[in-house]
Amino acid sequence: MRNWLLPEYIEDILPTEALHIEEMRRRIIDMLRVHGYQLVIPPLLEYVESLLTGSGSAMDLHMFKVIDQLSGRMMGLRADMTPQVARIDAHLLNYDGITRLCYASSVLHTTPSGLTRTREPLQIGAELYGHRGLDSDLEIQRLMLRCLSISGLDKIHLDLGHVAVFRGLIRNAGIPPEIEAELFNVLQDKDIPALKDLCAGMGRHVNKRTQQALLLLPELYGDRKILAHAYNLLPDYPEIKKALDELETVGKELQSVVDSIAFDLADLRGYHYHSGMVFAAYARDCSNAIALGGRYDEIGKAFGRARPATGFSMDLRVLSRLIKPDPYPKGILAPSRKNNKALEKMIAQLRDAGQIVIVELPGHKDNKRTLDCDRQLVLRSGKWIVEEI
Amino acid sequence: MRNWLLPEYIEDILPTEALHIEEMRRRIIDMLRVHGYQLVIPPLLEYVESLLTGSGSAMDLHMFKVIDQLSGRMMGLRADMTPQVARIDAHLLNYDGITRLCYASSVLHTTPSGLTRTREPLQIGAELYGHRGLDSDLEIQRLMLRCLSISGLDKIHLDLGHVAVFRGLIRNAGIPPEIEAELFNVLQDKDIPALKDLCAGMGRHVNKRTQQALLLLPELYGDRKILAHAYNLLPDYPEIKKALDELETVGKELQSVVDSIAFDLADLRGYHYHSGMVFAAYARDCSNAIALGGRYDEIGKAFGRARPATGFSMDLRVLSRLIKPDPYPKGILAPSRKNNKALEKMIAQLRDAGQIVIVELPGHKDNKRTLDCDRQLVLRSGKWIVEEI
Repeated sequence: MRNWLLPEYIEDILPTEALHIEEMRRRIIDMLRVHGYQLVIPPLLEYVESLLTGSGSAMDLHMFKVIDQLSGRMMGLRADMTPQVARIDAHLLNYDGITRLCYASSVLHTTPSGLTRTREPLQIGAELYGHRGLDSDLEIQRLMLRCLSISGLDKIHLDLGHVAVFRGLIRNAGIPPEIEAELFNVLQDKDIPALKDLCAGMGRHVNKRTQQALLLLPELYGDRKILAHAYNLLPDYPEIKKALDELETVGKELQSVVDSIAFDLADLRGYHYHSGMVFAAYARDCSNAIALGGRYDEIGKAFGRARPATGFSMDLRVLSRLIKPDPYPKGILAPSRKNNKALEKMIAQLRDAGQIVIVELPGHKDNKRTLDCDRQLVLRSGKWIVEEI
Repeated sequence: MRNWLLPEYIEDILPTEALHIEEMRRRIIDMLRVHGYQLVIPPLLEYVESLLTGSGSAMDLHMFKVIDQLSGRMMGLRADMTPQVARIDAHLLNYDGITRLCYASSVLHTTPSGLTRTREPLQIGAELYGHRGLDSDLEIQRLMLRCLSISGLDKIHLDLGHVAVFRGLIRNAGIPPEIEAELFNVLQDKDIPALKDLCAGMGRHVNKRTQQALLLLPELYGDRKILAHAYNLLPDYPEIKKALDELETVGKELQSVVDSIAFDLADLRGYHYHSGMVFAAYARDCSNAIALGGRYDEIGKAFGRARPATGFSMDLRVLSRLIKPDPYPKGILAPSRKNNKALEKMIAQLRDAGQIVIVELPGHKDNKRTLDCDRQLVLRSGKWIVEEI
């Protein structure tokens, strides 16, 4: 019944959940605002080329497209807001220094994805542009965790990865792009037999050290000991050393604010897009990530202004499912009396204090239950007072 | 430059305006909530048939369409949220009594319309279902005016119309649908010569009284005197008498809360959709309506549950253009010091009080101006204090 007439994985949000989402949304936006993150509202649709910047064909398949009647060009309905916010940073604001932006709006996917299997995630997130150091990664990661905790989620598990590890191996071994793409696929699928075949096929063209390192990556998942293994077992290319150092620092900084941290050196989520540290937050008993983020320094280049960038995003629909909402607040029923100043004043005072006051409409005797009221305004000894129904 | 890369009539909303819109949106939603209106969030897209309910072909032309990959059916991107909210009332909530709902989200149009000539209005509005009497129209009209006043707009002009006047003439004279459609078009265009031709062409089939009344409609625009003319000059069919009575009552009730009121008996806006009183609010020096509404009792029928209904909506983008926003609030710059408890406490206090505090990122000497800060946290005699920059 809930989905009557609606397409699959498309849903209405009804009052109790809508109020819950609205409150979480405000709390998060306000928190981001006092940290210097300014809200922007990019359009629901724009030319496909702008929306696909940096994200490649995976995003293309997820995106609904329509023809622009005014230009004849193809427009896409955004499937992710990050490229839009990067465009705003690159072109519209044009600050020299650091820019902090945030956003909260719906995106659309042609097929369902994520924890709630929705096609309309309500994406909320923050992006920091113009700073290359690890401190901006840390600021963004702390903010993401803060968003989860002010929403009512604690006991967060954090996964940390770094695309420079895999990229460093590829670049130093001079592996050609077509093999890189195959390696990327088998690593993402954690398909060890296929990975072994691929490494064996490289033969003499790729040194033994790199082959062993690639075979090792899927095993490099776990707590801080994994980093010690990685220092020992991976080739000591500078970019790999730097990546491991960064992971170690962030792990130390954040261990006190999360329940547990794991390092995943084969995590290549968003590889075509990210350029540095990547991270994902998980709630207890929940196998899908509830918040994601990472560094993506190159995305602005397509808009003519490559800038260091790091950010995170999450789906408010997912968050609202994980946290039980309060029941919708009950109202106060008020009688309808024309020009009764005392009653009008009382109603205005109650509403100013945040109480829901519903004035009865004449000619329609309401069932009080259906009006969601548990109290009423009644006249007792010449004064209007609130009584339980 | 502002529109770089974006399609025509599609725009980003940048921080100052976004904050302004966010604040107006919250103020309006909160006001509606304490009046008993519960927020719902219908989906951005659904099957075309649901979205076109009650609105006919005018809406069809405005609606972007995409194919649903999961069902092969055509989906539309909503161009108006009212049919969606009516569907929610009819099917999902299924209350017996009165239902009050509100909404605030983007809609999309294939071609620009409205005051801002945008293709992505940010529609906010409220709907009241289940009450047939004039008191619900009045509640909705008062709420609409309240939304405008709490947004900072006063000096509102209100136009009142009633589709029962034209419909009563058509029905009593037995005018066939094809002539009705032509009459509707010429009246909307206020094309008097074409109207005269049409009436002359009716000849003996339609009585003289009706022909004269139709010719008179475009002139029945103005203050309360117009109603006296209408009582005298229009045929005394019961539905026309009732419509004029309702207009007179509402005019009297609202005259104290608006700057001016006009009655427009040829206003057929939303004729295929509306069934009773219609109204439009205008700001000073502004020829397009800034808020619209009316009664539309039949819309739920297509969802299996015809219910009396009245509501209003407006575009937050339009409102935000009419009211000058405050400049974006300036922040306080804080130095970056690891594990300085006193500093961290001070920063947290300032943020809790709603102040924007931006922590400097090490290794990146920021130009304070570009960070939008006009104050800074400095250590003076062992205490952290806020100083002007």
